[in-house]
Amino acid sequence: MNQRIILAHRPTGTPTLSNFAFETEAMPVPADGEMLLETCYVSVDPYMRGRMSDAKSYVPPFELGQAITGGVVAKVTASNHAAFTEGDYVMGSLAWQLFQVSTGEGLTKVDGEAAPLSAYLGLLGMTGLTAYCGLSEIGKPQAGETLVVSGAAGAVGSVVGQIGKILGCRVVGIAGSDEKIETLQTEYGFDAGINYKTTDDMAAAVAASCPDGVDVYFDNVAGSVSDGVYRNMNRLGRIINCGAIAHYNETSVPMGPRVEMMLIKNSLLMQGFIVSNYAEHFPAAVQQLAQWLQQGKLQFSETVVEGFENIPQAFLDLFQGANHGKMVVKV
Amino acid sequence: MNQRIILAHRPTGTPTLSNFAFETEAMPVPADGEMLLETCYVSVDPYMRGRMSDAKSYVPPFELGQAITGGVVAKVTASNHAAFTEGDYVMGSLAWQLFQVSTGEGLTKVDGEAAPLSAYLGLLGMTGLTAYCGLSEIGKPQAGETLVVSGAAGAVGSVVGQIGKILGCRVVGIAGSDEKIETLQTEYGFDAGINYKTTDDMAAAVAASCPDGVDVYFDNVAGSVSDGVYRNMNRLGRIINCGAIAHYNETSVPMGPRVEMMLIKNSLLMQGFIVSNYAEHFPAAVQQLAQWLQQGKLQFSETVVEGFENIPQAFLDLFQGANHGKMVVKV
Repeated sequence: MNQRIILAHRPTGTPTLSNFAFETEAMPVPADGEMLLETCYVSVDPYMRGRMSDAKSYVPPFELGQAITGGVVAKVTASNHAAFTEGDYVMGSLAWQLFQVSTGEGLTKVDGEAAPLSAYLGLLGMTGLTAYCGLSEIGKPQAGETLVVSGAAGAVGSVVGQIGKILGCRVVGIAGSDEKIETLQTEYGFDAGINYKTTDDMAAAVAASCPDGVDVYFDNVAGSVSDGVYRNMNRLGRIINCGAIAHYNETSVPMGPRVEMMLIKNSLLMQGFIVSNYAEHFPAAVQQLAQWLQQGKLQFSETVVEGFENIPQAFLDLFQGANHGKMVVKV
Repeated sequence: MNQRIILAHRPTGTPTLSNFAFETEAMPVPADGEMLLETCYVSVDPYMRGRMSDAKSYVPPFELGQAITGGVVAKVTASNHAAFTEGDYVMGSLAWQLFQVSTGEGLTKVDGEAAPLSAYLGLLGMTGLTAYCGLSEIGKPQAGETLVVSGAAGAVGSVVGQIGKILGCRVVGIAGSDEKIETLQTEYGFDAGINYKTTDDMAAAVAASCPDGVDVYFDNVAGSVSDGVYRNMNRLGRIINCGAIAHYNETSVPMGPRVEMMLIKNSLLMQGFIVSNYAEHFPAAVQQLAQWLQQGKLQFSETVVEGFENIPQAFLDLFQGANHGKMVVKV
């Protein structure tokens, strides 16, 4: 028998186990042109909380009574599809089910020899692709330039900073504790770090850490932290708007210093993005990230929980900060 | 005797006539390798307000007690320079003086037969190049897209809108009087116009004029007008930050709704620029603009003020919206 995890009730406030339900059903059978997939690793991510509500956003909400979907690595256990063979591994947006059938649409084959399978949900998945594509397609950092990263100790931020170092930049990270700043420098090779929680004057702190100014700013937070960075941007600088966690819980549009004069005076670019904008670059990006991983140039931290039955709890634990780095469930 | 106009005092807030002073001096005499120029047309432009302050910017501030400099078309009245002959006309950044000597550095000869001399301060000068390069290099408008232009009745704005029409866009202009809106539609072929001075809800007005949303926004004003446009931007939209006249006379950084969440949600780009960033594209751009001008596809409106003594007032009038199209002074 097959098992799946459905959205039983939409949460109000913090989700709980009662929002999920397990269902048992007959094993699915692949039709012509389809294949049968067995789930290996499931990604649990904070953004999924948004999909549990029915508010309009750039990804549609989960449907009540339907299986939750998200990043999954699965093994092909039977195939009636010309392009996939039994024993292949695939990655993509799939259901929280032990087994499921697929036409292969939207799935990418992954190589379990080149990297651990779980990496395709993290460094070689959306996390790494967000860092790589945002930085390279928008930031276009050049050797010798200065890159500042906010949310630098997060999954995306830590990868951004490491890529910056590989590309020859001076890299300065902004994070919220001295311990995180220490980690950025010792584990990820950042040149300097700023603990914004103990810094009164962000603009001055950035100026002190970036004697040649800031050429590229990869922003995960926005808010007053970013205002301090903006004031140090060099002419023709690039601001990559990846996240704005400082504002996610605000109920009205927050106010801040207007950016237009600053953009004009220094010919600055600001560009928001979601990673799927750059889907055409994913194959080359995954290849580059995998190479750096194999060469030991990229460090990536994971928390791996075991067991299909523990997926909902692993998701809930994200909101308690139980994970170090990317949280995945091994099925 | 020669006359010149100097910066007498730096303005705080809105400039006034008292910031300028007229000085009389002996006629300059060209040395070997120099020529004597007689000013024919002087360009007055909003960006010059920035140079009157001593804040750091992309162009150095005017110096106190020195002649103001800007775009000028002048006639060679005497020449000790091999490359220039008496009777030639030249264009470039020159002083607000009746006569001046020059080595010819940075000057371009212009052809008064091919186009009216004043056009070299407008459609075929920085104004047209700013419109063309900003729109094509940053906005990249596609046929069928919707282009909104603020400051649409201004020199740059009216050219931007016409280029948008040539490229097959729906073009909506924002300006400050019903008369200007009428001109946009009848003279420049805009599809629709919004008088921001009689509009309470800019966001709703833009939505009504742009049923398919806004793909490209060429912004000359910033402020609350732009906030209304921003709320109608389509996914992957481009905002060209060319000017921010709403804020030029403000003495502190103005506050407004933060843009980061908006940029991320819709994958928007904002890019500030000055036209010299695109200098490599100028020859092709001038050729294209001249061709459209000859084909009758581009209308260009000028407000010509007569008299050297009226240059400061003409400049001040820019901030009262007294001009239709490019403001120049015929000396």
